[in-house]
Amino acid sequence: MLIDIVLDAMGSDKAPEPELRGAILACRHLPVRVHLVGPREVLRPALDQHLRGERLPIEIVHASEWISMEDKAAQAVRSKRDSSMRVGLKMVREGRAAGFFTAGNTGAAMATAKMVLGGLEGVDRPALATILPTQTGLPCLLLDVGANVDSEPKNLLDFAIMGKVYSEQVLKTRDTSVGLLSIGEEDSKGNSLTRETLPLLRDLLGRNFIGNVEGRDLYNGRADVVVCDGFTGNVALKTSEGLVKLFSSSLKNALKSTVTAQVGALLSRKAFNTFKRKLDYSEYGGAPLLGVRGVCTIGHGSSNERAIMNGIRVTAEVAQANVNGQIEAALRNSNGNGDMTL
Amino acid sequence: MLIDIVLDAMGSDKAPEPELRGAILACRHLPVRVHLVGPREVLRPALDQHLRGERLPIEIVHASEWISMEDKAAQAVRSKRDSSMRVGLKMVREGRAAGFFTAGNTGAAMATAKMVLGGLEGVDRPALATILPTQTGLPCLLLDVGANVDSEPKNLLDFAIMGKVYSEQVLKTRDTSVGLLSIGEEDSKGNSLTRETLPLLRDLLGRNFIGNVEGRDLYNGRADVVVCDGFTGNVALKTSEGLVKLFSSSLKNALKSTVTAQVGALLSRKAFNTFKRKLDYSEYGGAPLLGVRGVCTIGHGSSNERAIMNGIRVTAEVAQANVNGQIEAALRNSNGNGDMTL
Repeated sequence: MLIDIVLDAMGSDKAPEPELRGAILACRHLPVRVHLVGPREVLRPALDQHLRGERLPIEIVHASEWISMEDKAAQAVRSKRDSSMRVGLKMVREGRAAGFFTAGNTGAAMATAKMVLGGLEGVDRPALATILPTQTGLPCLLLDVGANVDSEPKNLLDFAIMGKVYSEQVLKTRDTSVGLLSIGEEDSKGNSLTRETLPLLRDLLGRNFIGNVEGRDLYNGRADVVVCDGFTGNVALKTSEGLVKLFSSSLKNALKSTVTAQVGALLSRKAFNTFKRKLDYSEYGGAPLLGVRGVCTIGHGSSNERAIMNGIRVTAEVAQANVNGQIEAALRNSNGNGDMTL
Repeated sequence: MLIDIVLDAMGSDKAPEPELRGAILACRHLPVRVHLVGPREVLRPALDQHLRGERLPIEIVHASEWISMEDKAAQAVRSKRDSSMRVGLKMVREGRAAGFFTAGNTGAAMATAKMVLGGLEGVDRPALATILPTQTGLPCLLLDVGANVDSEPKNLLDFAIMGKVYSEQVLKTRDTSVGLLSIGEEDSKGNSLTRETLPLLRDLLGRNFIGNVEGRDLYNGRADVVVCDGFTGNVALKTSEGLVKLFSSSLKNALKSTVTAQVGALLSRKAFNTFKRKLDYSEYGGAPLLGVRGVCTIGHGSSNERAIMNGIRVTAEVAQANVNGQIEAALRNSNGNGDMTL
């Protein structure tokens, strides 16, 4: 049985090329049927050329419009009623596919998913989660990284439950540790939101809650899951992206500066690639939007075919693991007895 | 004329060794007299041993206690009434020194400075500023990185004025650009604090205000100064520190993995060092605490002698440039006519 996954063919910076190649890779290696959404007149000839007669379970679903990275999210969602995102997400809502993946405009994807899919029972606000690499080699799931701006303690509790379920079901963590992003480890540290949320999280998660964690803990493997409001999470994520960019450019310049260094760079190229891969978020297949009624994963705009394939893979895994069903069960459980660890 | 600078001899992780060596370096190379504060019975023999008869303008000021990195800031400030920080900052308050530098417990240093020095006229909340390296090679001044938790728009306006003055006077920027840290460039993006603050900053700074900036802009040189609440700034800073650590350890491991890579690493070692230096915050001499009535700079706990010397240098520069006088003038001006650019 193949899992039906919808792929926004017009999402990434270089769309539809990485999407076409990624869909082909995915269908060769994974038990999936990919529904490529976008303008048929563009996709049909391009796909046929790539397939060269190879028979793979790839379908084209027509959408006459698409949302670009430059489009303002809210406006594009309103005005482009036949966008590839909207058409694709509708297929998920209607049960014609198990999940949706896009490497497109994050803001637009979140807004469209909220509108088309609606929220999960018991979740006030969906959250965008991202997976960060750590020193221990295990990933750290950070949420929310920008689905919301101003959050209430109740939202952070939902984020914690959703993040814990996702981490256990998809990242396969056990004894999952959840931290609250703050500016000091002691309970008294933080802003009014974190100070109010901390005791509630402790009640909710029991021994799975490890208290306040700091920004540096995002990369040292101290916590499997870290929750914060979407403003703080987005700043942490974008700051990290900026620093990675500074790193690569500085390193490149430093290694260009002398002939000896150039030879050195040549010899250590493979090591650098290992290192870069470790920091390549696309390895993890994108950021899940948690708390909507359906599976929706959002990849980086710079995704290449491999990142697209990984995105399709993770989207299928989330659907198969019934993450949403488990989140709803955990939420019901937490509302019932105040302790989801029971 | 020598500039009198107080140095907390008991601040850094390896105190007082880096402080003694740093003081000696500073006195050899800069027009400063260093007042080393700490237990005389420890400092006197150690200093004499280092000096080996060399005559330098270093004085020892006795303090029987000191605050460690493990001490809880608020408690230590209350209980250790004869700490090296408190004794040193009193010298600044009494006009016996032009500025104070410590590589000690940041929280304790801020609390002690606020208590001993008090706030500058017109400043509700002092802010801790940090200097980040960028792709253009020019530094970016980020504040507040943790002197406050919950901020009001008025606080962010003060931070903008203080940051702009510091950037112009100490980092020598011209046409200084100031950005507001948010999660999108458009005016409508951000949380309730940034949305309320944005128009006020535009009124205050006129063409020097470049609007919202994102986390990634901290490292690409888009803004000379970036303001945010202390919670967000602290998360951004600590996240960066965590990522730098992950970077170095990943790179080290990758370069150890094969013999070829090891040879490569050897050949490119100088290039790596250039690169590491670029990311070494201690080059900039520590983080200034702005908005207190006196000059106070706080360095990293891991400061070596060179970082200590740089801290002394910057502290002296801030004092000489009369940064505080200029901040007070700018604040008076901004309150008077609503536009400090006039």
